[in-house]
Amino acid sequence: MKSTAILLLHCPDTMGIITELTRFITDNRGNIVDIDQYVDHQENMFFMRIEWDLSEFSIPRDKIQDILTTLYAVRYQMTFDLYFSDEPQRMAIFVSKMSHCLYDLLARYKAGEWNVQIPCILSNHEDLRDVAEQFSIPYHVWNIDKDHGNMPQVEQEQRELLAKEKISFVVLARYMQIISQNLIDDYPNRIINIHHSFLPAFVGAKPYHQAWERGVKIIGATSHYITQDLDAGPIIEQDVVRITHRDTPQSLVLKGRDLEKIVLARAVTKHIERKILTYHNKTIIFN
Amino acid sequence: MKSTAILLLHCPDTMGIITELTRFITDNRGNIVDIDQYVDHQENMFFMRIEWDLSEFSIPRDKIQDILTTLYAVRYQMTFDLYFSDEPQRMAIFVSKMSHCLYDLLARYKAGEWNVQIPCILSNHEDLRDVAEQFSIPYHVWNIDKDHGNMPQVEQEQRELLAKEKISFVVLARYMQIISQNLIDDYPNRIINIHHSFLPAFVGAKPYHQAWERGVKIIGATSHYITQDLDAGPIIEQDVVRITHRDTPQSLVLKGRDLEKIVLARAVTKHIERKILTYHNKTIIFN
Amino acid sequence: MKSTAILLLHCPDTMGIITELTRFITDNRGNIVDIDQYVDHQENMFFMRIEWDLSEFSIPRDKIQDILTTLYAVRYQMTFDLYFSDEPQRMAIFVSKMSHCLYDLLARYKAGEWNVQIPCILSNHEDLRDVAEQFSIPYHVWNIDKDHGNMPQVEQEQRELLAKEKISFVVLARYMQIISQNLIDDYPNRIINIHHSFLPAFVGAKPYHQAWERGVKIIGATSHYITQDLDAGPIIEQDVVRITHRDTPQSLVLKGRDLEKIVLARAVTKHIERKILTYHNKTIIFN
Amino acid sequence: MKSTAILLLHCPDTMGIITELTRFITDNRGNIVDIDQYVDHQENMFFMRIEWDLSEFSIPRDKIQDILTTLYAVRYQMTFDLYFSDEPQRMAIFVSKMSHCLYDLLARYKAGEWNVQIPCILSNHEDLRDVAEQFSIPYHVWNIDKDHGNMPQVEQEQRELLAKEKISFVVLARYMQIISQNLIDDYPNRIINIHHSFLPAFVGAKPYHQAWERGVKIIGATSHYITQDLDAGPIIEQDVVRITHRDTPQSLVLKGRDLEKIVLARAVTKHIERKILTYHNKTIIFN
Repeated sequence: MKSTAILLLHCPDTMGIITELTRFITDNRGNIVDIDQYVDHQENMFFMRIEWDLSEFSIPRDKIQDILTTLYAVRYQMTFDLYFSDEPQRMAIFVSKMSHCLYDLLARYKAGEWNVQIPCILSNHEDLRDVAEQFSIPYHVWNIDKDHGNMPQVEQEQRELLAKEKISFVVLARYMQIISQNLIDDYPNRIINIHHSFLPAFVGAKPYHQAWERGVKIIGATSHYITQDLDAGPIIEQDVVRITHRDTPQSLVLKGRDLEKIVLARAVTKHIERKILTYHNKTIIFN
Repeated sequence: MKSTAILLLHCPDTMGIITELTRFITDNRGNIVDIDQYVDHQENMFFMRIEWDLSEFSIPRDKIQDILTTLYAVRYQMTFDLYFSDEPQRMAIFVSKMSHCLYDLLARYKAGEWNVQIPCILSNHEDLRDVAEQFSIPYHVWNIDKDHGNMPQVEQEQRELLAKEKISFVVLARYMQIISQNLIDDYPNRIINIHHSFLPAFVGAKPYHQAWERGVKIIGATSHYITQDLDAGPIIEQDVVRITHRDTPQSLVLKGRDLEKIVLARAVTKHIERKILTYHNKTIIFN
Repeated sequence: MKSTAILLLHCPDTMGIITELTRFITDNRGNIVDIDQYVDHQENMFFMRIEWDLSEFSIPRDKIQDILTTLYAVRYQMTFDLYFSDEPQRMAIFVSKMSHCLYDLLARYKAGEWNVQIPCILSNHEDLRDVAEQFSIPYHVWNIDKDHGNMPQVEQEQRELLAKEKISFVVLARYMQIISQNLIDDYPNRIINIHHSFLPAFVGAKPYHQAWERGVKIIGATSHYITQDLDAGPIIEQDVVRITHRDTPQSLVLKGRDLEKIVLARAVTKHIERKILTYHNKTIIFN
Repeated sequence: MKSTAILLLHCPDTMGIITELTRFITDNRGNIVDIDQYVDHQENMFFMRIEWDLSEFSIPRDKIQDILTTLYAVRYQMTFDLYFSDEPQRMAIFVSKMSHCLYDLLARYKAGEWNVQIPCILSNHEDLRDVAEQFSIPYHVWNIDKDHGNMPQVEQEQRELLAKEKISFVVLARYMQIISQNLIDDYPNRIINIHHSFLPAFVGAKPYHQAWERGVKIIGATSHYITQDLDAGPIIEQDVVRITHRDTPQSLVLKGRDLEKIVLARAVTKHIERKILTYHNKTIIFN
């Protein structure tokens, strides 16, 4: 695995941006290994992801951010993020009682499928402690009072843990608790949720029951970034499975599990690969 | 094609119904060619479709309805419908301006794919008259006033036409006009609509624009029976197609066309084959 | 969970079989909870699965097999299998080096998704011992000589282990070794394999490389029962995922993993639920 | 619709190609409306599609080809094709007896979905003459002798017709006759076929029967360019639909029709939009 730099940017669409940026990289002996761009002609906005090999790149990595800012950011009104592939992200997982998504995430982690570290699992229930222990990952539990009276205290401690562990992004693996605004603000577009319906259908609680009640012929799952509006954040990935009148709410729950874990894993993969750019409550998913 | 009788029924679930009915048919020398049943254990309700060959059936077809009523309907609190495969249904199509569903329906009709007759096409616009003429099917147009002032008159004439043509069921092939309660009452669970979204997401107008606005990664189409609640009738069939951030509302319209025509055709096929039973705003789709 | 009896049968299609069998069950106070049948009109063969509640069934369970044989098997030339839902099957898993299917199977097992026991995991490599240990399941390894010289000995020991553990059926969870005829004969239509292609395309080794080489736009996975012909046994379940020219053999391997584990799990579920009947190298999958 | 130029190219991957080409276009006041590129790292080959607005482009369109050749083709060992969006392609359709693909193509054509002209339909049977006449398109029939004795003569006349009509590309809409090498040579990678299976499974005749015989759980359709090897040309698009043991070869034929027409139409759309580049018997499908 060669070390690469990854640049995610957007700016108003103007002639010559691709030329400028690819020339900048090429002239400094960066070999472009991947490039994908997209123009939103309605918003007249340009989006790009470039990844280049750093092995012969002549600019030291700690100077790149500065130089990009100086040369291009102001001139093109460009917003950008710069990442390095050899600096793995640190991912925290929140869970409640259901194990299917957690097992799926940890099995991928253990198989080395992802360039990521998982230093902690957070929960509001004891149920999945043994799963965490199977994989030797610290498991932190906060019991939340019925009246939510201790929520501010819990959140404060959770935020401190995430900060202490230098967490880059959070995955809610069927975590059945509303996330506070403070935590969302700590991790804007970096908290990935899995909702067990084909959003925007069946927002809120018990979507499989809602789906069964309505008599749909297909159910879905949706992974999205958490924003302050419940189940309304930018959608990263969706998938569906066919059902019939023979299905019960219980069988939908079972069928949905497989959807949930696959859809969540696809979203996490894209996030880890720095292939998602969020704009106006939508995602651009680069190749 | 042998002539068959098709019985669609539902009643409270009791022991012995299958035995009774299959024995009745078999004892009278009807050869069962298809049988499918379903028990809704929550409602404790039994649903069945049986189809049997009439060629050696010893009961004259005009007596079957009576005998079933007398022997079983009261005893089992059974609701049933009886059809004969050699009595083709008569289907009316309502259209507005878009041709893709109409062409698809008529191409299947002409290829002999369906055991159906199409004596008339009804519209609120002249646009598709030439399509109707290509297939030599009478095309009836009512211009509807901007303020809908002539709607009662239009509906009255449409209902008279449908009655005169002995229409069995109606297909709304992207007909962009609300159907009146009177017409719905004439054809309960016999008016099939195609809605260009994955219901219940994006009810109402411009669903592709709504889908684009929300940033979904999959779009769908839904065929359903028309009830008085807009887009809320029993769902017959749904399907989806994957989209990306590169899609515009216009490209969604194009991609959606293929979904719409296929999903509508599947629903029409099931309806023609008498494989749909409607109960509590849901459909049971038999094999 | 009530105890039920499950009858899987096939026989030449004759009038009255359904009537006879449902009457037999009903007359003896068995409440039918599920029934599904299928007639192959080309072969003139009748297939049925009936499941009934045993709680008030008046025939002792150890007499049912005899009575069915005496009353119906000869008369209808019927082949049948009888199972009881409260006698869980015992499943053995064979693995080699890849963990994704094994984790998926064990996570479902641990979550109580299946009515099954898993007393042992067999392998030709040490690699997945720690996964087995995470779930406290005995892990048995046989190193197979390069020249396969010790294969007969290995197979003999494996068969003895399976017999000792009273194994009902075997799951090959990406086991990269040919299964011997003796083992297949021990478990006819009870060894489930997952092949990482959309069979019959890309039989044999390295199907993802073959798929990439051919330039297909969709890849698949197939679960099937093992027969003596490699990759040619009765297909239980298949599914696919879309790919593009950007995919490499390596990315296909990654995408394929999710397919493999889901397709394998669906097949295992159907097998555990006694919903598969095999006939002429095809499967009938009951509702 | 603005007039655009479309450049499809490939060459060995070298630093700076994107920079050079986008600068060339931008410097000459071409506004790039779409760009997509792909690097095959195994072959070290670079592929690109650029589309730019010609309205202010300073180089006359009849000079562009020359200038690109002079400036870049030799230097980068580049193979390229240049197209103009306001020069619609001319498409010929070959059919035999089945109407579903033909109707689907013509309905799209009539609805103005494609920037294409269809001056002629060629057939080896009279069956679909009335469909052609419905759309007022000349229909040419050659009866082919049982022993194929008149094939060379037929082909010669067909090639002359295609030349006379200035046909850009050919669509085989379920044309049940082998295409000769001469015709293939006239239209390299410009004859689009629809094969009614998920290639490479079920090559050759009666693929639905083959699929039914094998007992697959999913069937497919494949559109591909015709090469001299039967059913082995570069695959453009594939899709699938789920089936069950209840399906017969006849019902597969019916279900397959919808797949065939949709898959064929998607391939034709991509071809018309100049989004397909063929390399080493594979297709690169640009965004």
